[in-house]
Amino acid sequence: MLRIRWELLLMAIVCWHRGHTDNHDTKQSLGHVTVVVVGGTGDLARKYLWQGFFQLYADQVGKGHTFSFYGGGLSPNDKGTPMLFGILKELACPPELSAERCALVKEQFLHLSQYHQLKTSEDYEKLSQLIKQQVGQEGIVEAGRLFYLSVPAFAYADIAEKINNTCRPPPGAWLRVVLEKPFGHDFFSAQSLDKKLSGQLKEEEMYRIDHYLGKQVVSKILPFRKENKKLLDPIWNKHHIERIEIVLKETLDAKGRIQFYDQYGVIRDVLQNHLTEVMTLMLMNLPENPSNSKEILQNKLHFLASLQHVDNRNAVVGQYQAYNGEVQEELNKTKDYFSLTPTFAGVVIHVDNAQYEGIPIFMTSGKALDERVAYARVVFKSDVFCVQDPNNVQCKSKQIIFYLGHGDLQYPAILVSKNLFKPDLVNSGDWKEVAEHKDVNVLGLPLSDYYIQTPVVPREAYCELISHVFFGRKDCFISAEGLLASWAFWTPLLESLTRVFPRVYPGGVANGNLLNFHSRGNQVAFSHEAVVNVINPGAEDNFQVMQGKYRSSEMVSAWAQELVERLASDLLLAAEEAIHEGGQFHLALSGGSSPVALLHALALNLYTFPWRNTHIWQVDERCVPHTESGSNFRSIHDLLLQHIRIPYFNIHPMPVHLTQRLCVEEDGGPALYEKEIKKHVNASSFHYILLGVGQDGHTASLFQETKLESNEERLVTLSDSPIKPHQRMSLTFTAINRARRVGVLIMGKSKHELVSQLSRIKGESSKYPITKVQPKSGTLIWYIDYDALLG
Amino acid sequence: MLRIRWELLLMAIVCWHRGHTDNHDTKQSLGHVTVVVVGGTGDLARKYLWQGFFQLYADQVGKGHTFSFYGGGLSPNDKGTPMLFGILKELACPPELSAERCALVKEQFLHLSQYHQLKTSEDYEKLSQLIKQQVGQEGIVEAGRLFYLSVPAFAYADIAEKINNTCRPPPGAWLRVVLEKPFGHDFFSAQSLDKKLSGQLKEEEMYRIDHYLGKQVVSKILPFRKENKKLLDPIWNKHHIERIEIVLKETLDAKGRIQFYDQYGVIRDVLQNHLTEVMTLMLMNLPENPSNSKEILQNKLHFLASLQHVDNRNAVVGQYQAYNGEVQEELNKTKDYFSLTPTFAGVVIHVDNAQYEGIPIFMTSGKALDERVAYARVVFKSDVFCVQDPNNVQCKSKQIIFYLGHGDLQYPAILVSKNLFKPDLVNSGDWKEVAEHKDVNVLGLPLSDYYIQTPVVPREAYCELISHVFFGRKDCFISAEGLLASWAFWTPLLESLTRVFPRVYPGGVANGNLLNFHSRGNQVAFSHEAVVNVINPGAEDNFQVMQGKYRSSEMVSAWAQELVERLASDLLLAAEEAIHEGGQFHLALSGGSSPVALLHALALNLYTFPWRNTHIWQVDERCVPHTESGSNFRSIHDLLLQHIRIPYFNIHPMPVHLTQRLCVEEDGGPALYEKEIKKHVNASSFHYILLGVGQDGHTASLFQETKLESNEERLVTLSDSPIKPHQRMSLTFTAINRARRVGVLIMGKSKHELVSQLSRIKGESSKYPITKVQPKSGTLIWYIDYDALLG
Repeated sequence: MLRIRWELLLMAIVCWHRGHTDNHDTKQSLGHVTVVVVGGTGDLARKYLWQGFFQLYADQVGKGHTFSFYGGGLSPNDKGTPMLFGILKELACPPELSAERCALVKEQFLHLSQYHQLKTSEDYEKLSQLIKQQVGQEGIVEAGRLFYLSVPAFAYADIAEKINNTCRPPPGAWLRVVLEKPFGHDFFSAQSLDKKLSGQLKEEEMYRIDHYLGKQVVSKILPFRKENKKLLDPIWNKHHIERIEIVLKETLDAKGRIQFYDQYGVIRDVLQNHLTEVMTLMLMNLPENPSNSKEILQNKLHFLASLQHVDNRNAVVGQYQAYNGEVQEELNKTKDYFSLTPTFAGVVIHVDNAQYEGIPIFMTSGKALDERVAYARVVFKSDVFCVQDPNNVQCKSKQIIFYLGHGDLQYPAILVSKNLFKPDLVNSGDWKEVAEHKDVNVLGLPLSDYYIQTPVVPREAYCELISHVFFGRKDCFISAEGLLASWAFWTPLLESLTRVFPRVYPGGVANGNLLNFHSRGNQVAFSHEAVVNVINPGAEDNFQVMQGKYRSSEMVSAWAQELVERLASDLLLAAEEAIHEGGQFHLALSGGSSPVALLHALALNLYTFPWRNTHIWQVDERCVPHTESGSNFRSIHDLLLQHIRIPYFNIHPMPVHLTQRLCVEEDGGPALYEKEIKKHVNASSFHYILLGVGQDGHTASLFQETKLESNEERLVTLSDSPIKPHQRMSLTFTAINRARRVGVLIMGKSKHELVSQLSRIKGESSKYPITKVQPKSGTLIWYIDYDALLG
Repeated sequence: MLRIRWELLLMAIVCWHRGHTDNHDTKQSLGHVTVVVVGGTGDLARKYLWQGFFQLYADQVGKGHTFSFYGGGLSPNDKGTPMLFGILKELACPPELSAERCALVKEQFLHLSQYHQLKTSEDYEKLSQLIKQQVGQEGIVEAGRLFYLSVPAFAYADIAEKINNTCRPPPGAWLRVVLEKPFGHDFFSAQSLDKKLSGQLKEEEMYRIDHYLGKQVVSKILPFRKENKKLLDPIWNKHHIERIEIVLKETLDAKGRIQFYDQYGVIRDVLQNHLTEVMTLMLMNLPENPSNSKEILQNKLHFLASLQHVDNRNAVVGQYQAYNGEVQEELNKTKDYFSLTPTFAGVVIHVDNAQYEGIPIFMTSGKALDERVAYARVVFKSDVFCVQDPNNVQCKSKQIIFYLGHGDLQYPAILVSKNLFKPDLVNSGDWKEVAEHKDVNVLGLPLSDYYIQTPVVPREAYCELISHVFFGRKDCFISAEGLLASWAFWTPLLESLTRVFPRVYPGGVANGNLLNFHSRGNQVAFSHEAVVNVINPGAEDNFQVMQGKYRSSEMVSAWAQELVERLASDLLLAAEEAIHEGGQFHLALSGGSSPVALLHALALNLYTFPWRNTHIWQVDERCVPHTESGSNFRSIHDLLLQHIRIPYFNIHPMPVHLTQRLCVEEDGGPALYEKEIKKHVNASSFHYILLGVGQDGHTASLFQETKLESNEERLVTLSDSPIKPHQRMSLTFTAINRARRVGVLIMGKSKHELVSQLSRIKGESSKYPITKVQPKSGTLIWYIDYDALLG
């Protein structure tokens, strides 16, 4: 057939080589490649995709593969064909091709392309037969089939099923299906979409595109870090990085796209995907082998897992003033309809590992801002003391900028402050240094203060990505696990924002300082306070803390977050008092779910907590090894101890695991712990015991059924739990009621029933062990959140 | 007698009140106060002291005390008297006094003053009798005697002895002896001076002056922190402070004072005392009770104890070009004499506690610089992200400056960036806010960007301090413990600088960027590299690391610091390799003195050490509780574990303390540790065992006398040491020789003899247990410093 002859001919004429991607780890067995763009006459296909496939063809022609291209769509062939060729005729020449050469390649590309209706299963089956037939005639083998789904996400599952059922290539040839966001709108929808797709396609067959990963600067982040590893290693950590900024500012608004945009908003639209990918590339562990896609994806996952929880305390949101009107118009809503969808968001993210902890990552994006610009930068702490000559370049700020384009610079580049180091350009034939400098300032420094690298030839992201699909470079795409990890990170924030009213901003330069925001500890707020919320003034949540009485003791009540913060600061006061008095603070912590938030608050928000003089004891423990995830000690360790600086000797895990056995009576664990308590704690009276309550009214690991020994002097006991693991070790009521202070923390709607019942019982009830908590000379305070109190 | 009448008269005329210092905690019982300025006609007395006592008198007259003033000196009375009155006549009027009033007070002050020769013991005895006689005549009681020793430090001990023997006030009256720096020139000389003085005077009787503590801004640091506690508490920590700078720049040189200066240099002259005091006030814990001197001094001590070790790696030093010529001239030295005394120093200090760790404190001072200025400032991390409007005040840098004077501002003040907070002026009648602003920039911001406070009336430091002596405010003076603590901190740096050639700088503006310096990790270096050392080019130490063979194994040798850094980085490589291979790194550490520096290097310099996957084991342990200071585990804990983020479960202390007993055979400690090793360490083959060697050739706790069990499979054993504590637990040679890598670290001249002997022995020798270290399939590397290798 003529098609293939053409290619052989071309190979004979010239053989040029771009080779920058084909040294990757995937074996490309030669043969015929079929490209199918489903939605091949749509907008994205018209603007980017065909151009990308044309570039791919131009790059690959004459290298041994043969190709055919199908534009697929719902229209019948007689309608679709002219539409497709209308698009293809307009394709621009790749810059590296001479006009003559381009004309030749383009003619051939058109020749290899055709439209094919893709609506029903039969259509897909027909396509498959067409491919087989053609390949059979030519007497060549199929190398693979590439489907690019340029259709709305709701159609993915259906098309995937059709491809799977009727259009798979023969054994030995690959199948690659390219998908584009949105991949769900939160963790659960993403998971459900993934389930549907993974029933039809293998993970290795799916190429989820984030077009940011195709941007040249973004795809250079890892190589840049690798090439300059020696220089970066000493400074790429919390000791030297002051802050990180990941910024995408747009001047455009969402007008005309409200139908889509209002369901998503800025966080789902760009933060969850594009900006998260950029952050990940900047901070993930470098792969040992940069062409090992699996290792890269693993490292990405590992990084995402190390992010600290983010919710509405860590974010500010805004909405440009005209937006709501656009919503009313485009969604046919009445004038009293208000959308809470944010068009601007600023989030401060922290990484919870030793290398980066404490570095604020400011991630922000918005529409209708004053300029169009996208960059990610690492600002380093100034490590210089300028005794004299403060204008010297050494005294200026130090930063590395991954500049994606627009803004003051206008072209994509990597910029490194000259007082930092001269970056390497090794192995980078596609990149060049910029020597001459426009008289312009970029992020605080004149251009001449930077070393600048820029791509030799600017390439469209889709071009790059299409080439990566062809070469099977999975590391340039989103893995299912990576997608879910990113959603797992963003979903709590999205959920916590559902009731938050965005700050309204006028748009453009008129925004002034209205959207500037700052962090303090883990909290974030707009810096400019005076603002009238025109959407719904006064509707913001009332976070007051309430004090009252419960079961004749003091009670503090508030929404969960505030309650936990209050308890944490009460603990700090108790600690300071105890240490002032006797030098030490003895704190006993419970297992269970409620204290988790407390431990988090203690570990991360109370900078001045006197851990050096604090002893941590356990209220109760499950009879499992301390290293296992079910262990209470393990929770305390992971949530608290790993984050603070506390002497090893001040940590007192319950000895549930002695002589390689768990809670065996003869090993005398309780007696041992009792001895340790008596040795350290004055009169065995803990300064603070923190308790939770189970729905059944149990506290510590003392259940209704628990038979306590008759010896009332025992401080520690083994007990049995009705729920697994059954064996427990626990402080006794004797120990608990000796404490100076006992706090009982009860949170969540599931405890409401119990809270009501307990309020009706006076004194002790054998049904509810918690009622036996009655400190002899200490005080008892109930911390009950509004969910538990009010239901 | 006329004197006292005068005072009663004055009291009747006016009664004004300055009251800013007399609300302190010392009870002042009324009576007669005798002031003796020893060296009363000297320079300091002329310039500052008499003015201070005049001010004191003007403040106190009419408040119930009576006074007499003696200028003492070596001259006979007929010579000294006119000298003294020559000085007194020139005294300036305190600004708050009317001319008329001042004339009256001054006349009276002259009346109460006289010269008295103070040379021999008899002179002092006579003085004492004079005082008694006078007080007796007046029929009043003595309140106290204040001796101001304005004489060279070498005379202190002698004078103190005379005062003690002959000039003590009667019981019930106080004795206060004021001394001024230098208080020794290092820790040992300060200790020895202290010993001499404390034989004569009680600590409460000694008032060691640091005149910086009398500067109004310095003495306002603690009150400022206290008054603004609520606003400062959340930001006064490592999470918000970017850096601290403590700076004293002088334009003057040392010419004419070389005799004194060349013995001391800039570090002893101003860093050890003035700047250290300023740093301490900025960072010490606030006292609960700000008028409790004891608490303040305790908190100061506590802070000084938390400073990280500093040596020449943490400092840069310089010397202005003309200095050496001045030395040759003033000290009558030949032209080939070179002084290494620094006239410039830049030091980066770190505080080793949870609140401040990681914050670099740049402390610097120098002579012959471009301007005269002194300040201490706290620069805060920017917590703002400015989406737009970056020139807004919110986006500017945030700092608090304690400005001591001169420089661009020209007056002493406390400045707080307006975007930080508006500081309180509560309880500060003596301070005012500055509203109108000169058009000037101070440390990066225009004056209008600051809230500014300044003293209402500027007072000389000596004036303030003389008043503080009178009121017994010990917290404004240096305690013996505080002095020694400061010297203990500075002495290692001073010692390590004895061989370091200062960078020569031209002086003044011509210094350019020559003295700018930067820190990287804990190291400090001049930022501008290209410099010709005109004193002695090429004489700098050669820090090359040497590799060779020792006892047929590899050997690395270098000076101690470099050796330890090399070993630390070898450990890092071993760790990375092991973790890459199997996910875990098992490291066994020895006790002993050599590893101390290593642990320090591991904890503080290797940011990327993979602690999360590292297990720490012990090579040997003394049979003492782990919390005791003699415990090897305690050292490992304090030096390493407290500084890193390592899971609790990865720490494996040797079980020397079971069932409340130490190393009892029946408790089976060795077997227990062996079990733990077998459970975690693959084939019981540690990845790295670090050993030391004793002068007697022992290693681990395996001595020449140690009888090892016949069972060669045992990994852990109890052993006896010839030195205390005798009982030990130790890995056996079986365990050691199974390791993949064994490093033996030998440092110090005291090991030279042993190193020589070992090099002559081939194979094993029962005399030297270390010779039995012969890894079966692992490698052995000797790390021997030049001191041990070359003697």
